[in-house]
Amino acid sequence: MKLSQGVEWGLHCAALLALAPPGMTVRREGLAGHYALPVTYLAKHLQAMARAGVLHAVTGPRGGYRLARPPGDITVLDVVEAIEGPAPPFVCQEIRQRGTGAVPPESCRRPCAIDALMTQADRAWRDSLRAVTIADLVDRYPPGLRERNAELVAKAAS
Amino acid sequence: MKLSQGVEWGLHCAALLALAPPGMTVRREGLAGHYALPVTYLAKHLQAMARAGVLHAVTGPRGGYRLARPPGDITVLDVVEAIEGPAPPFVCQEIRQRGTGAVPPESCRRPCAIDALMTQADRAWRDSLRAVTIADLVDRYPPGLRERNAELVAKAAS
Ligand code: FES
Ligand code: FES
Repeated sequence: MKLSQGVEWGLHCAALLALAPPGMTVRREGLAGHYALPVTYLAKHLQAMARAGVLHAVTGPRGGYRLARPPGDITVLDVVEAIEGPAPPFVCQEIRQRGTGAVPPESCRRPCAIDALMTQADRAWRDSLRAVTIADLVDRYPPGLRERNAELVAKAAS
Repeated sequence: MKLSQGVEWGLHCAALLALAPPGMTVRREGLAGHYALPVTYLAKHLQAMARAGVLHAVTGPRGGYRLARPPGDITVLDVVEAIEGPAPPFVCQEIRQRGTGAVPPESCRRPCAIDALMTQADRAWRDSLRAVTIADLVDRYPPGLRERNAELVAKAAS
């Protein structure tokens, strides 16, 4: 099980955009340069975040990205699901209904105990990511970093 | 993010072996046949479970697999980690130390807030899987399935 590198990128970009001056946008080159990320590969993740309604994309000469909602209204899970998709990592193939041990369909109206447990664990993971917003993340930055990033992103914004 | 199909297979096989007569082993063909799984592909997962100390592999004509410990001492997490490996799904590449926004190394002695949060979410997931044993899973089977599987696995055991 592996999360895409884009999760680290997307969360950092969202946290950076949370510090941009209100209403202003940052070009993908500005976001990529802040973290030395490959622009075209980052662009795919930014587009996915825009499609998911986490970012707002502005086109044109003064275009770029800004957060689509206040950072306190965007959860870490919103960003993770924008990048990774909402599909659960465990997908039950109903193997209990196959083979010499096959359980008849009428006994399978409730999810298998194993499937139920994996779903519960996935819920614990998502709950944990849903409990923290992008605003919370920025609040957890070490002293000075918030101000420093705010200054840098203001220069990159238009 | 995706878990290997082997997680469903491995958990079902462990739950089945939990019902085998004490000390007896089941051949991989018996396990595969119970759930109509491809034998050679299942064999890889069974070997991984044996390497991880979840299963005990017995070689020879009466060989096969049995649980390496009582089913109440094997957690679902033990099986999941045997199949998937213990690596966390999120790996921080320290992008905060790169690019025009690079944070100096002396300010990076503590994990990044984003890394810390992802680690915490992973812990919630693993805690959830660690809280349930293979014995618990079998106890959650619908009425009759435990007895039925015990009968079938006794026939397959040697
Ligand atoms: S049949 Fe899919 S998890 Fe049990
Ligand atoms: S630098 Fe890796 S998660 Fe922040």
